[in-house]
Amino acid sequence: MSALPLDSPETVTFAELVDLLQRIFLRHGVAEEVAAALAHNCATAEQDGAHSHGVFRIPGYLSTLASGWVNGQAVPQVEDVAAGFVRVDAGGGFAQPALAAARELLIGKARETGIAILAIRNSHHFAALWPDVEPFASVGLVALSVVNSMTCVVPQGASKPLFGTNPIAFAAPCAGTDPVVFDMATSAMAHGDVQIAAREGHNVPAGTGVDRDGQPTLDPQAILDGGALLPFGGHKGSALSMMVELLSAALTGGHFSFEFDWSQHPGARTPWTGQLLIVIDPDKGAGHSFAERCRELVDEMKGVGVTRLSGDRRYRNRAQAQVSGIVLPGAELTRLRELAQG
Amino acid sequence: MSALPLDSPETVTFAELVDLLQRIFLRHGVAEEVAAALAHNCATAEQDGAHSHGVFRIPGYLSTLASGWVNGQAVPQVEDVAAGFVRVDAGGGFAQPALAAARELLIGKARETGIAILAIRNSHHFAALWPDVEPFASVGLVALSVVNSMTCVVPQGASKPLFGTNPIAFAAPCAGTDPVVFDMATSAMAHGDVQIAAREGHNVPAGTGVDRDGQPTLDPQAILDGGALLPFGGHKGSALSMMVELLSAALTGGHFSFEFDWSQHPGARTPWTGQLLIVIDPDKGAGHSFAERCRELVDEMKGVGVTRLSGDRRYRNRAQAQVSGIVLPGAELTRLRELAQG
Repeated sequence: MSALPLDSPETVTFAELVDLLQRIFLRHGVAEEVAAALAHNCATAEQDGAHSHGVFRIPGYLSTLASGWVNGQAVPQVEDVAAGFVRVDAGGGFAQPALAAARELLIGKARETGIAILAIRNSHHFAALWPDVEPFASVGLVALSVVNSMTCVVPQGASKPLFGTNPIAFAAPCAGTDPVVFDMATSAMAHGDVQIAAREGHNVPAGTGVDRDGQPTLDPQAILDGGALLPFGGHKGSALSMMVELLSAALTGGHFSFEFDWSQHPGARTPWTGQLLIVIDPDKGAGHSFAERCRELVDEMKGVGVTRLSGDRRYRNRAQAQVSGIVLPGAELTRLRELAQG
Repeated sequence: MSALPLDSPETVTFAELVDLLQRIFLRHGVAEEVAAALAHNCATAEQDGAHSHGVFRIPGYLSTLASGWVNGQAVPQVEDVAAGFVRVDAGGGFAQPALAAARELLIGKARETGIAILAIRNSHHFAALWPDVEPFASVGLVALSVVNSMTCVVPQGASKPLFGTNPIAFAAPCAGTDPVVFDMATSAMAHGDVQIAAREGHNVPAGTGVDRDGQPTLDPQAILDGGALLPFGGHKGSALSMMVELLSAALTGGHFSFEFDWSQHPGARTPWTGQLLIVIDPDKGAGHSFAERCRELVDEMKGVGVTRLSGDRRYRNRAQAQVSGIVLPGAELTRLRELAQG
């Protein structure tokens, strides 16, 4: 009788994964509401097949918590500044509980005034961005979010990195189907995907990044070891990344991607910056229902041959996971279970 | 004594060019306020060295006016929908006078509520987008605008064009210097620049577009003659272009880039769509002055080797033109003067 191979796949339900991750966070000094928000976010990414933001992130979360760099117990302070403007001081904690604390206020303002802004500062964002915007589209609103991160992207025309990967996420309701959602790093590749390429030992596409000498490289490890990423789409992606710095940091009162110093916190992984969300009530516009119009656009896109929209793969993975569970390597699950108890 | 060469350059002041263009528009059936807005916009582009949106556009304006496709006499109808939401029905006229009509209301709302949205529909936009956002930054506000145009861009993964060139423009105040402004087509190249390349007979970069058979081409004329443009930056630029369609058309109540039919109007050139502006009062955010923070970012960008920001060339051209005038080929000015009188 041979032993079960350590890495034979094992299946868990979404609820089981959320529960497991929540216990891990609680076990590592995170407050209950924070643990709930992070666990839900991380399990969603894993379920949706976005592995670079799924359980792959757990060691980074625990490392950054252990370093004292992020405050897992922070209580977000929500400030109602104006009819369309909400600020949150995340208190050096994670961005997700800060958004959760302001969410209802933000939605109420957007429905009342037509558009509202949420400016989160003093926050750590270490997750995918689409889980922050999709829920607004699920209740009929249009949402746009940007978050800056940590210096690892060379602005177009520069010789050294300055910007973060600085993603932009957008969500819009779509009649009769899932919301239209995208979440794109303004770097040529997301940081997590470079880490995964390095771990798996395969090259990245040309134009992704440079090595420590500023020379173009296809080696993900060279990008991580003192090298840097490039913006997507040349000067246009670079301009968008600059915009993300201005909106996420200058406007919120958070740090730019190059402004924080974690050298006194070995193991720190999470960027201490800011996040901006803009939420619009699209039915204040003229004409037909926005969601119906969105559906018309999607149908026309399919008509000219688009077979996959930005969020489609995630929705397919999600539907699959809801039927047959989330598949993880057995060794990974064993490690997670140890972290929840250890 | 030899005759002056027809194309020897001639110099005019900005005010002279505005006046000349205004007389052209008035002479071709455009109402006074509309003529003022279009002339100022077009002269600004010429002065700033953005030739594809300068006097180069005049024949297109006159052709589209003569075709009866756009209403040069339209009076924009401003609707105050909510504390942060303004709609304008441009009445089948140009977008610039619609923005001008709503501008003060929009600024007042942004200062009061922190953020405000302007949804223009039933409008024709045939100009650069940065002149629409820069003035907001000049009074301390952050502005973002998108406008969809006409089918000429193949969505990523599609076989036929659907989107317009769908630009995104952004402006932010910057302490002690000109606002930070960018204006980017979400296509690999702006339509006017393809036309200029075709006129001047030089190739466009690889990845710019496809010919009528959907094959990649470097020939700008092949792109214009039944071919199409590609989005910038692959699937990311394509997703942004989709977002522009949703915000500019679905949200405003305007047409998508593929929805209007100008076949009954030979000579029509202007896309009949919609435009969205979002204006934010950045000093509702926490912390230091936004403009000071913007300046810090710009200084850091220069520190890592960025020698030219998005708007720099325009500001340099503008400063030069204010000292020594705007230089145009003599034949071009002669043609313009004939159009103003003819």
